[in-house]
Amino acid sequence: MTISISERTKERLLYLMRLLENHALAGNSGPVTSAQVEHLTGWSRDTIRKDISSLNGDAAGNNAGYDPQLLIPVIKKALGLDRRRKFCVVGLGRLGSAYLNFTPPDLAEFELAAGFDANVNRVEMLRSPAPLYPAYKLGEVISRFAIEIALICVPAEAAQAVAEKCVAAGIQGILNFAPAALSLPPEVAVRNVYVADELRSLCVRMR
Amino acid sequence: MTISISERTKERLLYLMRLLENHALAGNSGPVTSAQVEHLTGWSRDTIRKDISSLNGDAAGNNAGYDPQLLIPVIKKALGLDRRRKFCVVGLGRLGSAYLNFTPPDLAEFELAAGFDANVNRVEMLRSPAPLYPAYKLGEVISRFAIEIALICVPAEAAQAVAEKCVAAGIQGILNFAPAALSLPPEVAVRNVYVADELRSLCVRMR
Repeated sequence: MTISISERTKERLLYLMRLLENHALAGNSGPVTSAQVEHLTGWSRDTIRKDISSLNGDAAGNNAGYDPQLLIPVIKKALGLDRRRKFCVVGLGRLGSAYLNFTPPDLAEFELAAGFDANVNRVEMLRSPAPLYPAYKLGEVISRFAIEIALICVPAEAAQAVAEKCVAAGIQGILNFAPAALSLPPEVAVRNVYVADELRSLCVRMR
Repeated sequence: MTISISERTKERLLYLMRLLENHALAGNSGPVTSAQVEHLTGWSRDTIRKDISSLNGDAAGNNAGYDPQLLIPVIKKALGLDRRRKFCVVGLGRLGSAYLNFTPPDLAEFELAAGFDANVNRVEMLRSPAPLYPAYKLGEVISRFAIEIALICVPAEAAQAVAEKCVAAGIQGILNFAPAALSLPPEVAVRNVYVADELRSLCVRMR
């Protein structure tokens, strides 16, 4: 069954899932009430109830609250996070190599499949939990291993060309760490993670 | 004059400012129409017009569109981005040292004032555009230089303690790169930048 969920609802469900995970990780067992969620998120109880009932009204909640153990898998499934996806890191400078070696427990949904860099020395010298390749093999490796996601960590001036190569090879989602706006076909999902924008967003909330 | 703007409007204005900057950077001169903004953002023209008129109905727009050169400073001022703020990087591993050396042109609003690490060798060896200090000097340096923002790049298990020390020394905004939820007084602004969450948000938009 495919459920159609609005973008806003998806964002809220994703955030709720994270709260439920943290609740469980913090050693709490038992249900989370919609009042608690309201307190933590600022969303109204009605909104929360509506979001959750859009998935599955019965399985995960009742008057006592939502059981994280039941609700998390329901949300994961609805959001398409219930299967493991392969990702690669393109550009292995400081930032790229940091993400190469960044495997916290909740990245279990994601499998680092490859890293790429134009500098062959760097490819040979870096320690990595996944195989590294010179940049010219990017297209071949992405399609051979059916890698779906690329973290783009190259300099701004190289980002557009690299992104186009990734997309041509089958990449469907890009986390763009390069400070450059990418122009790509609309079916490719792009998220920009850019420290200047993050700093600005932070400032806007600081005053 | 202080203008009270809703959080959602602030987010939209921030994004609009970025679009206008990119428009200008891409070598375009002349106005941007609300139809173009609608196309790029998906927000309705009415929303865009309302957001902008909440700032300053006259100065920046007319029927021909919005002039980036006029509108950008108006938005910056309204969002409190019109003065330079000092930030520091706490934790100088791969990620932290990447941000230490990350000074794109549009970070002009932000001044890297210091870096900190518990490892004294690292503090002495790393090349940096700003002075680096051992971790025990964190409180003293933050208050002496009136640093307002901290990028926290320490391991997850150290993040809460480091954040508390930053806040005690006067930090008002934190970009948290550690995969740990921080528990801080409500007057401190926190943004979590966490690759697992970014990957999930990306996936949700990929299907």
